[in-house]
Amino acid sequence: MQKILIKNVLLAGSVKDILIAGNTVSRIGSDLNTDSAEIINGSGLAALPALYNMHTHTAMSLFRGYADDMALMPWLQEKIWPQESKLTEEDVYQGTRFGILEMIKAGTVLANDMYWHWKGEARAAQEMGIRFINGFTLIDFHDEARLPELKKDIQQQYEDSSQYGELVEFSLAPHAVYTVSEKTLRWAAEFASEKQLKLHIHVSETEQEVIDCLRKTGLTPLQYLDKIGFLGNNVIAAHMVWLDDKDFDIVKKHNLTVAHCPVSNMKLSSGIFKYSEFLKRGIPVCVATDGPSSNNNLDLFEEMKFAAILPKISMMNPELAAAENILQTTTLNPAKALGLAAGEVKEGNLADIILVDLDNINLIPNHNLSSNLVYSAHADCVHTTICNGKILMHNRRIKGEQEIIAGFRKTIEKLRKA
Amino acid sequence: MQKILIKNVLLAGSVKDILIAGNTVSRIGSDLNTDSAEIINGSGLAALPALYNMHTHTAMSLFRGYADDMALMPWLQEKIWPQESKLTEEDVYQGTRFGILEMIKAGTVLANDMYWHWKGEARAAQEMGIRFINGFTLIDFHDEARLPELKKDIQQQYEDSSQYGELVEFSLAPHAVYTVSEKTLRWAAEFASEKQLKLHIHVSETEQEVIDCLRKTGLTPLQYLDKIGFLGNNVIAAHMVWLDDKDFDIVKKHNLTVAHCPVSNMKLSSGIFKYSEFLKRGIPVCVATDGPSSNNNLDLFEEMKFAAILPKISMMNPELAAAENILQTTTLNPAKALGLAAGEVKEGNLADIILVDLDNINLIPNHNLSSNLVYSAHADCVHTTICNGKILMHNRRIKGEQEIIAGFRKTIEKLRKA
Repeated sequence: MQKILIKNVLLAGSVKDILIAGNTVSRIGSDLNTDSAEIINGSGLAALPALYNMHTHTAMSLFRGYADDMALMPWLQEKIWPQESKLTEEDVYQGTRFGILEMIKAGTVLANDMYWHWKGEARAAQEMGIRFINGFTLIDFHDEARLPELKKDIQQQYEDSSQYGELVEFSLAPHAVYTVSEKTLRWAAEFASEKQLKLHIHVSETEQEVIDCLRKTGLTPLQYLDKIGFLGNNVIAAHMVWLDDKDFDIVKKHNLTVAHCPVSNMKLSSGIFKYSEFLKRGIPVCVATDGPSSNNNLDLFEEMKFAAILPKISMMNPELAAAENILQTTTLNPAKALGLAAGEVKEGNLADIILVDLDNINLIPNHNLSSNLVYSAHADCVHTTICNGKILMHNRRIKGEQEIIAGFRKTIEKLRKA
Repeated sequence: MQKILIKNVLLAGSVKDILIAGNTVSRIGSDLNTDSAEIINGSGLAALPALYNMHTHTAMSLFRGYADDMALMPWLQEKIWPQESKLTEEDVYQGTRFGILEMIKAGTVLANDMYWHWKGEARAAQEMGIRFINGFTLIDFHDEARLPELKKDIQQQYEDSSQYGELVEFSLAPHAVYTVSEKTLRWAAEFASEKQLKLHIHVSETEQEVIDCLRKTGLTPLQYLDKIGFLGNNVIAAHMVWLDDKDFDIVKKHNLTVAHCPVSNMKLSSGIFKYSEFLKRGIPVCVATDGPSSNNNLDLFEEMKFAAILPKISMMNPELAAAENILQTTTLNPAKALGLAAGEVKEGNLADIILVDLDNINLIPNHNLSSNLVYSAHADCVHTTICNGKILMHNRRIKGEQEIIAGFRKTIEKLRKA
């Protein structure tokens, strides 16, 4: 079994050694030794749980900076969707590989994704070595006749999905209530239940989405999804901006996982997530980046800063969303939501660990590491990224980085000419 | 005269050579050559105007992460002011040097500062080589009897100030209307007018400040400052959150310089700056970081992202505050406000230039460089920082960096024991 020994690293305020055996944190102590381990010198570094990004569209790295300063619907309809219709599986592979490169550099080792060309994404994720919940996107624009073809594609893809290794997980991602028919939503929920898959969906991102759903069904998107039997504790609901009291009750009833994307919501003027309501009701929140073309990066450190200070200004309460609490939104909260023994660096947990550089200028002085990580740091404070016991980045170097960037740039050039 | 030739750098979309002679951009063209110049290979880099930070308290790097998630007044009164009372000139020198190190790494070459121990700051700024408008802070807590001593200190300091080189500028920084008496404010304005100094002041940062001023004087802070003859085009007013229509007229009448600090205003729940009102009235805004203990960094790239997306969400208009416009808030707007031939890379302008690394992951793909800089990049995209024709950072290396960090850490240890 492969072993890694991290020597003399700062962990929760004390200098410790951490022994990783296989994919697990096997021992934490002082003066640990083992013959056969790869040694990492942890002096000047601090160990923390690696970050989990619970809502993104990784391959949209292809469209970073392609269109900004626009509203959600024209941005999608006039700019993004026409571009996406041109993408091949290879393009998505290149975009996903590059997006995961950015994530690894930012200490992120899990992405809950929703995008097109499932295989392109799966191949990239397997190569890059992060945990990847690969959502097969369903959109039928309320044309139920499209369901049989969707079903066929999904069944085929589901059967092939095991070949991408243990870290790539097949899930279903019906886009939203305004793009997917009831029949398709119902089928997706049944298939997910039968195969024990996660369901990933945009919910109540904009006020218009809620108004349209109310007009059509008399119900909010969440109440409608509840009524048609879509909801369960396998559902990861992204955005969740425009919720009413009944909606909050539904979140609790089904133990939904909530992915909050403050930057995207601000940039697209979608609305202000009611962070204090979630706190008040004891509903854990996961902070996520959304795609890199509505953000426009995949840096959860920056995202946490927005998540921490948006509630402060929106509720005029600077004590809300303190740094310690916010750090859990990308570590412990998503790990618990996914049922993973992770989110904390402790014996028996999965070895999903980052080492941050205490000599990074944003982490000096070290009065309070949590505060520095949330309010001061960016991705570049991450020195080493470990996922499932494997070192994906060390001293900010990632194997094959130049080739990944070159391939991505070639894809961009090709798309420009298309 | 010292010359620098930047070869084959991307400038406004084309590959150019830039010749710097002394402190000035002397020529921009193709295939420039000169015998005696230091050559910088600009391939893979883009040249941009260096950033100017129009409101900060640089030495508060000492207190980064020291106290967070608190309201402004208890934060100041219970945490910051007691710590500040212990600081020596040497402590402030160390804090300022370190803060400027962070700024240079983030492409910032001008700070409009307000802090204590003028000489400590001036010495640090001169050594580090950035433009530093060094505000001598005035606080008398409405005890006019303190004025004679303040006057004496200021006059002495003003006389000695020329010894810190051409880039360190003496200015007066009366803290705010709630901490400085009318008599002292009037004297400061007179002294500033006589010596042609800038005046740097916090104005209408919180609603409470406005309410208190209305109770006491019947006027808003800005209207009160207008009435007592404090205002002129030498005034840099920081925060400016809670303005009414009359206040906006005053801003225009006196051509005040406005320093907007979105992160600090959000983090401390001070209020939402009316960006769209400034736009509507054609008043240029300068975006600034505030001090590194209320932010908690000095990264104007991150600050611009907040400045760009806070108006979008607060006005529910995603087209507001577009990237191109926001980039000017840290370049052209402050340069114009200060009367400096700067803020654009062009012949005849001061050589305040940054080179950003187009291979930085956040600048790939390069669909739109302005968008990437505002929405995707962080400080670490800056490869080279040039101020007044001198290279302060090249390939992210700054002369003496290790010694500066070591000195800063020693100061932190000393303060912890104090």
